[in-house]
Amino acid sequence: MPAKLPADSVGLVQPVKLHFDDVLHLRSGKTLNGFDLMVETYGTLNAEGSNAVLIWHALSGDHHAAGYHSEDDSKPGWWDTSIGPGKAIDTNKFYVVCLNNLGGCAGSTGPTSIDPSTGTYFGPNFPVVTVRDWVKSQVLLADRLGVQRWAAVVGGSLGGMQVMRWAISYPERIAHAIVIASAPKLSAQNIAFNEVARHSITSDPNFCDGNYLEKGTYPKQGLMLARMIGHITYLSDSSMRSKFGKANIDLESEDSNFGRDLRTGTLSFGFNADFQVESYLHYQGERFSKNFDANTYLHMTKALDYFDPTVDFEGSLSKAFEQTTCKFLVMSFSTDWRFPPERSREIVNSLLKAKKEVTYLEIEAEEGHDAFLLPIPRYINALTAYLNVVAQELNKDAS
Amino acid sequence: MPAKLPADSVGLVQPVKLHFDDVLHLRSGKTLNGFDLMVETYGTLNAEGSNAVLIWHALSGDHHAAGYHSEDDSKPGWWDTSIGPGKAIDTNKFYVVCLNNLGGCAGSTGPTSIDPSTGTYFGPNFPVVTVRDWVKSQVLLADRLGVQRWAAVVGGSLGGMQVMRWAISYPERIAHAIVIASAPKLSAQNIAFNEVARHSITSDPNFCDGNYLEKGTYPKQGLMLARMIGHITYLSDSSMRSKFGKANIDLESEDSNFGRDLRTGTLSFGFNADFQVESYLHYQGERFSKNFDANTYLHMTKALDYFDPTVDFEGSLSKAFEQTTCKFLVMSFSTDWRFPPERSREIVNSLLKAKKEVTYLEIEAEEGHDAFLLPIPRYINALTAYLNVVAQELNKDAS
Repeated sequence: MPAKLPADSVGLVQPVKLHFDDVLHLRSGKTLNGFDLMVETYGTLNAEGSNAVLIWHALSGDHHAAGYHSEDDSKPGWWDTSIGPGKAIDTNKFYVVCLNNLGGCAGSTGPTSIDPSTGTYFGPNFPVVTVRDWVKSQVLLADRLGVQRWAAVVGGSLGGMQVMRWAISYPERIAHAIVIASAPKLSAQNIAFNEVARHSITSDPNFCDGNYLEKGTYPKQGLMLARMIGHITYLSDSSMRSKFGKANIDLESEDSNFGRDLRTGTLSFGFNADFQVESYLHYQGERFSKNFDANTYLHMTKALDYFDPTVDFEGSLSKAFEQTTCKFLVMSFSTDWRFPPERSREIVNSLLKAKKEVTYLEIEAEEGHDAFLLPIPRYINALTAYLNVVAQELNKDAS
Repeated sequence: MPAKLPADSVGLVQPVKLHFDDVLHLRSGKTLNGFDLMVETYGTLNAEGSNAVLIWHALSGDHHAAGYHSEDDSKPGWWDTSIGPGKAIDTNKFYVVCLNNLGGCAGSTGPTSIDPSTGTYFGPNFPVVTVRDWVKSQVLLADRLGVQRWAAVVGGSLGGMQVMRWAISYPERIAHAIVIASAPKLSAQNIAFNEVARHSITSDPNFCDGNYLEKGTYPKQGLMLARMIGHITYLSDSSMRSKFGKANIDLESEDSNFGRDLRTGTLSFGFNADFQVESYLHYQGERFSKNFDANTYLHMTKALDYFDPTVDFEGSLSKAFEQTTCKFLVMSFSTDWRFPPERSREIVNSLLKAKKEVTYLEIEAEEGHDAFLLPIPRYINALTAYLNVVAQELNKDAS
């Protein structure tokens, strides 16, 4: 934590683990007999219970979206740039809720939890969960928190899929849906990258068919590889180029260095990391492997692969969106090649076809898919302006 | 082999292993004291020795570019669609040479060869070879074959890098340089993908620090992963979509971009392959792992990473190209995101800046990087037309 808390920080926050006794019937046909959700909230729920905003993490995030857990924290939550007093998602106005998804590894019931029926880790026996299952568990969470209708639900990437599922399945319970850097369903290329990541994990001998925790180990190399692959797809070609290359101003424009800065200055003529981009990926992969559960990684990627809001609507996205009653804000980033702008435009076109109100913004940004987590001015300004209107609507309703 | 040889096939061909006693001084500072090159030739060298065309394989190819090795062969060489009597690279006119690169695993000296100084496999002790080293070995090959000057040198991808190196280092020995789907040097993203592939291999416990052959094993999972990653980058997003999706004609146009059923059947709600693209990648990866040497994979990717023709020219590609005297044909493919058209345009712009004669063609093709191996009409027509002119120049010179 910085020596002094920034004025626009939500400050010290504490996650709470909420237990639900409910039996959750999952899409797979299996059930969870009770479960925990790890939740953080920022700001205060108003008397009408109308100012709540639900935020989702993407593949590898958690419930800790803003503020600091302790005075020793070096970094705030993952979306601290956007959540706080006076920020885009203004905690002076909104009661902000973020949770760790079921199947996660940050406190909600998942593969690293103890299965009460066996007394040992769920591990590979944790049932496959889908976006729809998550949303079902979040409806119970909303009830528990006293939120009858979310002022807005906001999610990027995998989070955006949860936004769409809420809007389609529980239209009466959300007023605004904000879908950022997402897609109506994965492309073959998306699924292919996920499968390579999964195969990296499951083919690591330390995966032990998913029972690594019992054996006191974990598939370090598999997780590293999964993260390295993921990381490449989060960044754009051009952002990697600027991140790993010193602009060489002596060169003519035709000859940029393409992000080829050497790690040590000379080639090794061996198979060690010669380029900075290689050591960066190793570092990111290794760090991730120590902090993330391998079975959870499999679950999160499978939830992405399985997401298909058209499944009950004869394959038609516009028919699915006909169920919705909220207003939509859809945003995409120009260099995002994981969920490129054309995928967001599919969402927008289907919403228009379903005669729904939608605002769409395509933001020029060099940072690829990662842009949705970054404080890019045009993006933050758009989010701020939109949520200002949402807050004004609340005041109007209350007056 | 088909029951009857196609009329435009070069027919049954036999590779030859040529031994060179020369000491090859490599860029790494190491030496190879003698080496073998595995070579195939098609057509006949004319009396003047002027009608030779050199062809290169890309990362995982070999010397077997055209024709059949035996009557049991189910498939011809890897570029049979373009090499043969009456084909784009017309063996009635040209003497076509293709070789396995040093460091390869198809017969040329490489990690799977026996190191005469130790009596055991080179394995991980095979020295790192660069594109420049390859070209150096190929100059000795040209001398051996009696080719003073190549009528044309032709290469796609990694092969295109060898074309550029020949043109810069041995300008007097080539008349035409044909660079297909290549790049002046790898981008940070290219290097990143190569490093993930290498890390997959070296972190496989069966890699045994590169000594797997001695131990009677091989890093199957690592090679599978490397190939799976490679394969995703060879295909375009759109080609994967058409390859692995059943078109659903009932869908409205708004849904067409993603409105393809990628599933193999019902969802498994487990971690097996649910989508066609997953089983396809497994199949390709497994097949490759049985046929390709892991150390060779490391060498080929490192040669790609290290390629930088500007290194002796103050980082300037145009200064490097000032050395050249041949004419250039550069071709790229619209959906190739591994070596996209802008990378070819960099080559073209630098050639123009160096005041060299260059023809550039950007071909609309859905197939991504793989397109350079496929019989796409506009591409084949361009190659045919260009090489017709090369052949006419030969006749003019001879008359």
